[in-house]
Amino acid sequence: MQGTVLYGPRDIRFEERDAPKIIHPTDAIIRVAATCVCGSDLWPYRGINQINEPTPMGHEYCGVVEEIGKDVKSIKPGQFVIGSFFASDNSCPHCHNGYQSSCQHKEFVVGAQAPYLRVPLADGTLVATPDIPSDDLIPSLLATSDVLGTGWFAADAAHVEPGTTVAVVGDGAVGLLAVLSAKQMGAARIIAMSGHVPRQRLAREFGATDIVTERGDEGVERIMQLTNGVGADAVLECVGTQQSMTQAIHSTRPGGGVGYVGVPHGVELNGEELFYEHVKLHGGPAPVRRYLPELIDLVWNGKINPGKVFDLTLPLEQVAEGYRAMDERRAIKTLLRP
Amino acid sequence: MQGTVLYGPRDIRFEERDAPKIIHPTDAIIRVAATCVCGSDLWPYRGINQINEPTPMGHEYCGVVEEIGKDVKSIKPGQFVIGSFFASDNSCPHCHNGYQSSCQHKEFVVGAQAPYLRVPLADGTLVATPDIPSDDLIPSLLATSDVLGTGWFAADAAHVEPGTTVAVVGDGAVGLLAVLSAKQMGAARIIAMSGHVPRQRLAREFGATDIVTERGDEGVERIMQLTNGVGADAVLECVGTQQSMTQAIHSTRPGGGVGYVGVPHGVELNGEELFYEHVKLHGGPAPVRRYLPELIDLVWNGKINPGKVFDLTLPLEQVAEGYRAMDERRAIKTLLRP
Repeated sequence: MQGTVLYGPRDIRFEERDAPKIIHPTDAIIRVAATCVCGSDLWPYRGINQINEPTPMGHEYCGVVEEIGKDVKSIKPGQFVIGSFFASDNSCPHCHNGYQSSCQHKEFVVGAQAPYLRVPLADGTLVATPDIPSDDLIPSLLATSDVLGTGWFAADAAHVEPGTTVAVVGDGAVGLLAVLSAKQMGAARIIAMSGHVPRQRLAREFGATDIVTERGDEGVERIMQLTNGVGADAVLECVGTQQSMTQAIHSTRPGGGVGYVGVPHGVELNGEELFYEHVKLHGGPAPVRRYLPELIDLVWNGKINPGKVFDLTLPLEQVAEGYRAMDERRAIKTLLRP
Repeated sequence: MQGTVLYGPRDIRFEERDAPKIIHPTDAIIRVAATCVCGSDLWPYRGINQINEPTPMGHEYCGVVEEIGKDVKSIKPGQFVIGSFFASDNSCPHCHNGYQSSCQHKEFVVGAQAPYLRVPLADGTLVATPDIPSDDLIPSLLATSDVLGTGWFAADAAHVEPGTTVAVVGDGAVGLLAVLSAKQMGAARIIAMSGHVPRQRLAREFGATDIVTERGDEGVERIMQLTNGVGADAVLECVGTQQSMTQAIHSTRPGGGVGYVGVPHGVELNGEELFYEHVKLHGGPAPVRRYLPELIDLVWNGKINPGKVFDLTLPLEQVAEGYRAMDERRAIKTLLRP
């Protein structure tokens, strides 16, 4: 088969690779129905995260189970399944506590930007849909695999509740779906921070009530103006830079929550400043597996349409253009069809 | 009157000062029944926090209302009252959210190590006891003013709940009362980290089930051993150094809570490390006012005896010895009687 490999900064190749095989008896092989490019894929693509060897790319996926290892009990060939970027056994104490992305046996899923994918710990990782989905549901189901689950975790970690005022830092696909998540959780007011008109439009469609175009200290000042000097009850940090993190913390009221899901790059927090900010801070790799059944259900029943974040769909072999479009911010998120 | 003034490192003087007067119509003057030396007083005492001028000391107090300003409505002369180290109006949005120590009009209370004290925002700050207390209740009532309220906030901020496993970093008075707080909140297991036998004894009396004498990485390793490699559900950080904060974060399970109340000194948190630790972080100056009614009630009805942390009682004029004893760790906490 042919799959996606990153060789170095902006050097994405779609080239011949061995098709994945069952390695452990708990593995499954799935035939990928759709995959996509993640904002976090851009870190190594841009050379900000270094890679030491050619690296198979992709960790968002949905598709049909082709083959299972002999110890796989609940997942069956022929099922349409979705899994998280972290494979998890879903039975260790961390999984029991709902933190499957810190599973004691977690494995990062790699190589999903390909027609076939090996998923470790299949029983713990994969969730089957009620039936084979119609084609129009595929983008939204794919979104539950990471980008929606991550935005959802941001909202959950920041304690979004009915009636709360929420601010979202970051207008990438995760930020936009954090808006959708906050809306689903009953937020009364959702302030999206974005300077890009098409993204502002999608944010409003997903439930944003206000748009703030300023960043940094000016952005914080606008949030303060919009909240009568109090700050937001919950702020969802979906970028991962020092500026975005500082902006999030300063926009939150004392006792409010910051949910941070942008992988921090060069972020340092001063203990004393954090102490007097008085915020609740929680984040990390989203435990998508915890949310998958609920999110799949919402998509399946037409309650949400997170697939709208895919504003570019390409055949998988054009994956390099998919990366370029996101890198140049011509696309919010690229869906790839094998 | 004579009151306590810090002139420089280890230079505490008990000297003639003006008796406090009503300055604002919302002030009250109280005749101090008891005050004490706070762990945080040791930062400037030791010269770690610099002072620029002779500084009146003390922010923990209880006593009888002597005089009130003309806008004070609910507090009456003759009442026995307790207040927090942060005066608060108890009516602004932050107070309504339970974060009175971030009140929009907060004022730090200073000069409590004296026979008389001016308390700003008296109606919002002071809580009256049901009656004039008997003398033996005074130490425990005084403890609610800061040291118990702060330990309580650590436990609350870390989400201590019935059945949880809790670790407490720090065996000062706050750490010991964090143990008591965790016990009151129903923790099933409370691991106190202390290398000092008399403090270990008091920790056990307050509810500790296990003692860990190791610190730093070795302390973390012991917590991991005691929790089958999982980590504690809640860790209460009651010191404020880089080592104690790191120890607390590393001892917590993914999704567990770190409640930090030690004022951070030189603490820096790496964003990426925090991200993958997956913990919930909350702390800051304890909103003691939120807890005062409940804590006073527990003391009044003999349910808790936090006053046991005072292992040295001195007449107020011997305040300098009170500081020395704590500085040299001869005393856990010094109570002072005017």
